Amino acid sequence: MPSHCSELHYEVELGIVIGKDGKNIPEASALSYIGGYTLALDMTARNIQGEAKKKGHPWSVAKGYDTFCPVSSLIETDKITLDDTKLWLKVDGVTKQDGTTRDMIFTVPYLISYISRIFSLEAGDVIITGTPEGVGPVKPGQTITAGIEGVMEMTFPVTSQDN
Amino acid sequence: MPSHCSELHYEVELGIVIGKDGKNIPEASALSYIGGYTLALDMTARNIQGEAKKKGHPWSVAKGYDTFCPVSSLIETDKITLDDTKLWLKVDGVTKQDGTTRDMIFTVPYLISYISRIFSLEAGDVIITGTPEGVGPVKPGQTITAGIEGVMEMTFPVTSQDN
Repeated sequence: MPSHCSELHYEVELGIVIGKDGKNIPEASALSYIGGYTLALDMTARNIQGEAKKKGHPWSVAKGYDTFCPVSSLIETDKITLDDTKLWLKVDGVTKQDGTTRDMIFTVPYLISYISRIFSLEAGDVIITGTPEGVGPVKPGQTITAGIEGVMEMTFPVTSQDN
Repeated sequence: MPSHCSELHYEVELGIVIGKDGKNIPEASALSYIGGYTLALDMTARNIQGEAKKKGHPWSVAKGYDTFCPVSSLIETDKITLDDTKLWLKVDGVTKQDGTTRDMIFTVPYLISYISRIFSLEAGDVIITGTPEGVGPVKPGQTITAGIEGVMEMTFPVTSQDN
């Protein structure tokens, strides 16, 4: 947690790892571009994002601090069912997020197709796909645990980052 | 120029190529992290950026299309005087931008120091530094020429990109 971040929020997200290069990928073949999955913690300095949004400034920085998007090791494609994969996140053992990919606003094939019409996707790129309800703040000293039900679990401590 | 971009703008910019890894770099030693320079054309889909700004959405995409930030080959450090390096840009031979690094709002050491407090800089990273006045639109069929006075010149055609 950087010293000038007063409000640090967690978002647990499923990450898509691209397996081969592609551009203008049709939705119908998008699943064949998936090389695996990862579990991602999309951390956001919400105060910095909020100020940037108000000014119409770019807010990549609010999600761009060192250590802000830890990801798990690669998860094999056959371990995930996109129809109903359950993601959860706990802070100090208390459940804060508990959702399923069933509730995603955009399907994974739609996301891959949409993004690939803007820029080329390359093997190794990671697309993170949005988070279930329950987003909230954490403070130094707390511990975040997140997982994909039946597949994997990861733990990260929240610490102060001296600048 | 992507088909859903109705307003494509050029911005000629000096790029700083980072020569060694660093984090929390003091301004006083920032120049020692420069490994070279590059001339960059920061192309922006201004209509897409404008819509995103209004909604408070991130606007990386407006600058992120394939082919949107062509850069020159590496320019050696001793070829550039940061006090007064002249950048220019012409569209179809007509001068549109003609500025100097003397007019930069933030100095290069300030930029390097500021950014390195947000995320680690790595050798090979490129920082583009903002553009002089005279930003404007181009259309397919036009040709952009840009240069650093006395150092180099580069030419790019504007073409339609089928999506």
